[in-house]
Amino acid sequence: MSREQQVLDRIERVRRRKPVVREERITLAHGAGGKATHTLIEAVFLEAFRNPLLAPLDDGAILRLEDARAAFTTDSFVVSPLFFPGGDIGDLAVNGTVNDLAMCGARPCHLSAGFILEEGFPVADLRRVTASMAAAAAAAEVTIVTGDTKVVPRGKGDGCYITTAGVGLIEQPVTLTAAGARPGDAVIVSGPIGAHGAAIMLARGDFDIEAPITSDTASLHGIVADLLRAIPQHVRTLRDATRGGIATVINEVAVASEVAVVLQEEKIPVRPEVTGVCELLGLDPLYVACEGRFVTVVDGEHAAQALDTLRGHPLGSEAEIIGTVADDPPGLVLLRTTFGGTRVVDVLVGDPLPRIC
Amino acid sequence: MSREQQVLDRIERVRRRKPVVREERITLAHGAGGKATHTLIEAVFLEAFRNPLLAPLDDGAILRLEDARAAFTTDSFVVSPLFFPGGDIGDLAVNGTVNDLAMCGARPCHLSAGFILEEGFPVADLRRVTASMAAAAAAAEVTIVTGDTKVVPRGKGDGCYITTAGVGLIEQPVTLTAAGARPGDAVIVSGPIGAHGAAIMLARGDFDIEAPITSDTASLHGIVADLLRAIPQHVRTLRDATRGGIATVINEVAVASEVAVVLQEEKIPVRPEVTGVCELLGLDPLYVACEGRFVTVVDGEHAAQALDTLRGHPLGSEAEIIGTVADDPPGLVLLRTTFGGTRVVDVLVGDPLPRIC
Repeated sequence: MSREQQVLDRIERVRRRKPVVREERITLAHGAGGKATHTLIEAVFLEAFRNPLLAPLDDGAILRLEDARAAFTTDSFVVSPLFFPGGDIGDLAVNGTVNDLAMCGARPCHLSAGFILEEGFPVADLRRVTASMAAAAAAAEVTIVTGDTKVVPRGKGDGCYITTAGVGLIEQPVTLTAAGARPGDAVIVSGPIGAHGAAIMLARGDFDIEAPITSDTASLHGIVADLLRAIPQHVRTLRDATRGGIATVINEVAVASEVAVVLQEEKIPVRPEVTGVCELLGLDPLYVACEGRFVTVVDGEHAAQALDTLRGHPLGSEAEIIGTVADDPPGLVLLRTTFGGTRVVDVLVGDPLPRIC
Repeated sequence: MSREQQVLDRIERVRRRKPVVREERITLAHGAGGKATHTLIEAVFLEAFRNPLLAPLDDGAILRLEDARAAFTTDSFVVSPLFFPGGDIGDLAVNGTVNDLAMCGARPCHLSAGFILEEGFPVADLRRVTASMAAAAAAAEVTIVTGDTKVVPRGKGDGCYITTAGVGLIEQPVTLTAAGARPGDAVIVSGPIGAHGAAIMLARGDFDIEAPITSDTASLHGIVADLLRAIPQHVRTLRDATRGGIATVINEVAVASEVAVVLQEEKIPVRPEVTGVCELLGLDPLYVACEGRFVTVVDGEHAAQALDTLRGHPLGSEAEIIGTVADDPPGLVLLRTTFGGTRVVDVLVGDPLPRIC
């Protein structure tokens, strides 16, 4: 028997010793690195995320990267509430990092997950979160290969914060950057905006509003791969419209590329119930976070092909060309309103929606 | 001028527009993804960590990996207090992830950093932390290439939590795992143990004890590289002795490898001032965290060479062979005490030292 086989056998024997978390709530000992931490890792995290790279539970995971060009990204998640219509902090944390990799033009491969748990957090809730992460990871065809858990005393956290990082491989010959937009390019959004932010606001229950809104949280790697396969040389920029909404990411493009972006208000897809909630709360949907929508800038001549490609994917069936890139005034985003006026769409100032992701 | 050059020029022009953080304390707006977030990222994070991979501030960093075998790891840091003799949460967060990569046998290359800031956290403290991260990254020859910032309301955090993830390249033909120890192997610790944990306990000021103890936080990639260069085929296991101390990591090895480990108490290096503080606080130094020490299991026949190599590095001048690996009883760590007795060294139960890292 080879040494590698012996090692795998040992791991397998250790695995069979099914550890059990007997506590109902997280204690400081779960973060101390000792027995309770080991049990938590094996009974909850390894149980949910099991894969050959994670199983050895060494200090890090060993990746075999098939290509020399990789994307690397991270996001912390502090959403409140942890569970909301359409998702929870778990799938958000997986999808968010998967999407950041997709926005780099990469095929997402491996994730890490760092948990900061508050003493007293129900273990049952942690299991719900890890189950949801596992499902999102399976859907996005990524593995969670390494992680860490810390516990902070009561009142020094809020149940559960998660930081995911991700590694993906760039397999297409693309150069994607917010600084890549040029006059004549088209600006496309992959679907109706603002549902995630609106769902979170309603889930907090601070307002006496009921509306059938669910978060749009989703992994965008598939639809992005379709787009990059269709017109690899003609996609300038990909940005998922999370905090700050599409207004913020389009402003980033305008500033970084030193171009103007002119948006057509009537082309911007917003579901009526989201519009309704935003009106009641005094929010502009352009600034409301999505977690499963992206903005792409593509060569104007290939805009129709890009739109067709996006609409051919379930997550892009309501995609729209919402604007064009112009020379002047550089760094500004303008909105041609439905009523025929024009206004400047500035970046978000202040925080109308804290802890949205 | 090539398109790539144009893009770099734009980034450079944007860079020159020196943004300034005018607030003295972190506000929720700094986490909202809008103007305040951008200013914070550019004036604080980019200023401290500037490098070509981070500068575009896109959704992720694009890495050019020169080899196909990589290590990937993450750690969250919630240490309290944030600043302590010998270091702070910033260099701890860099060194911790650098060390986890080193323990995988990898040359650390790139880090990500996710910040969870509490509303009201002084911006000056954040600058101290980022300066310290930048210095630690420079010392470890890694770049911080991507990041994220979230802000939680007052009372939902504790100033600053940091999660770093890291990618490194495995350039030596090594197979390192806690399951790799074999009877006849030697167990070596790279230097005196317990200083980090003791320094943190004293820094909290809960005890009326003064002692000249500074944290041992340090990047171990250099000393590990020396060891792996010297005896690449004979190093079984590398583990940095953080939470739970050397007792915990040696237990991990005993369990995963299904071997016994017999430690000689008088060989275990502990500084007298650390011993003194541990006696006063009722702590066993074997369980107290280090942040710049590691345990390695090496082939017994190469133990002397390993020790010489470690002692040749400034971080290993006090390294010692502290024990041997035996057949029986599998999964147990035994300590031959200075007084001639033998006791079982179990894994840590409970949390004597919460928020040590």
